Amino acid sequence: MTGFFVVSRYGLMWAMQINQSTLINGSFNGVISALDRGFSYGDGVFRTIKVVQGLPEHWPVHYQTLVKDCSAIGIVCPSADDLINDFKQLFSIDESVAVAKIIVTRGEGERGYNPPAVTHPMRVMIKSKLPNYPQANFDDGVALHLCETRIAHQPRLAGVKHLNRLENVLARMEWQDPLVADGVMLDVVGNVIECTAANIFARYGNLLITPKLDQCGVAGITRHQILNRAMHLKLQTAVETFDLNKLLAADEIIICNSLFGAWQVRQFNHQHWKKQTLASHLREALHS
Amino acid sequence: MTGFFVVSRYGLMWAMQINQSTLINGSFNGVISALDRGFSYGDGVFRTIKVVQGLPEHWPVHYQTLVKDCSAIGIVCPSADDLINDFKQLFSIDESVAVAKIIVTRGEGERGYNPPAVTHPMRVMIKSKLPNYPQANFDDGVALHLCETRIAHQPRLAGVKHLNRLENVLARMEWQDPLVADGVMLDVVGNVIECTAANIFARYGNLLITPKLDQCGVAGITRHQILNRAMHLKLQTAVETFDLNKLLAADEIIICNSLFGAWQVRQFNHQHWKKQTLASHLREALHS
Repeated sequence: MTGFFVVSRYGLMWAMQINQSTLINGSFNGVISALDRGFSYGDGVFRTIKVVQGLPEHWPVHYQTLVKDCSAIGIVCPSADDLINDFKQLFSIDESVAVAKIIVTRGEGERGYNPPAVTHPMRVMIKSKLPNYPQANFDDGVALHLCETRIAHQPRLAGVKHLNRLENVLARMEWQDPLVADGVMLDVVGNVIECTAANIFARYGNLLITPKLDQCGVAGITRHQILNRAMHLKLQTAVETFDLNKLLAADEIIICNSLFGAWQVRQFNHQHWKKQTLASHLREALHS
Repeated sequence: MTGFFVVSRYGLMWAMQINQSTLINGSFNGVISALDRGFSYGDGVFRTIKVVQGLPEHWPVHYQTLVKDCSAIGIVCPSADDLINDFKQLFSIDESVAVAKIIVTRGEGERGYNPPAVTHPMRVMIKSKLPNYPQANFDDGVALHLCETRIAHQPRLAGVKHLNRLENVLARMEWQDPLVADGVMLDVVGNVIECTAANIFARYGNLLITPKLDQCGVAGITRHQILNRAMHLKLQTAVETFDLNKLLAADEIIICNSLFGAWQVRQFNHQHWKKQTLASHLREALHS
């Protein structure tokens, strides 16, 4: 955050240079109130969206999910029109690819957990560069870490991409090897749930399974789309509860998110998998 | 957040009126970066402290707990000197009583859970009025709600007053009756843990117990002090796991936090307790 004191006709003020990469409620601005409940309590939800030539990929399903996640914690979701205007302000058809992060919070509040009688939800859109993913992740697959940090069971919030993400932060801090793309997170009873920033699939023959997320975890839209499109790749799908041993017995493991699509896991927990083709077929299917 | 656009020698800027009740890293300022990880992920901790005539009550134990909580999630805690300077800037000996909220976050980060190689923790101190507690809460006791929202088991974060507080928010949203002072939260397996903004004690004869917080919950400093001082009231203490039925069988129930001290619970889950004296003795003991 850059800023400085300014003497103006309004008196002494702390002034911020206009931030060209962040919109707060539709206005260019890099700062939020220290009283925002998103900051105080993580009282909000978010989405991460790939933006190609100014257009948000898979926007209808992202917006549906944002509406559903807001509803899960009782926040009024901003209108699609407002968000589309935000995209128009921040992104240009001339940019090949970029990332939009949308954050929606319950807005400002006084001290205390009880929201004000009337709340004014805040919407934030932050533009950033697409991470510089190594081409090898797409061509040859990735290595994963096994996280010690477990995910707590909280059915009330399961599946929701809310702002309480300390578990993911602590899990992500467990490794710094740049050759490790992500880490597998188990829940408190040892079932496989997801990676810190991706969902996970395991293939056994022509059956593709992904963890049930009724106790915890984030149900990403790419996971949803893979479940919908796997039939085109002659795969059956199932959503079920399974443990680490079952994951390790998979013929093929895939991780997925909105930014990179799908990658094959080649190395995990001292085990190796040979190079296969499902991840690249899934990446194609995601754009068909 | 109030602000306006200003044309100055620096160009067009978004300017904020100086906020006299909030310090960010020691400077008067009501706003934080939208990239702060406290906002993105709840990646931080906080404390709520009663300030009497400019002096923070029980400061040594508050600061020790802040250091411990920062350490639990790997954040470098601000120095006591910096925080004491913040108190001096925000509070005055002429004010009989007020509230300080301290928030410490891991600071700004780019998109993604992995913290930057070098982090600059942010400290926030927000001054607010002491809530206008009804005198009857002290004199006659309070009524509690039984929350449907359960607390997840996360031993990695148990006891820590971190910024991931959606469970407390959802629990607090369950009632709006102003005569209900707080709500009892159980964990996912049905054990009593705490209230949304207070710890809880149950007395059976001369034994005073409070829930073990090794799986979840916030270990407040008033709980700690009551455990230390109960012997002066000829009470034995125990920290143990117990369920709702055991709580309801108590001779006396007490809730406590740093702002109000201790209150007796007179009404909870369709049950009533007669007026007793432990809460007022505890309030005295907390100041001895």
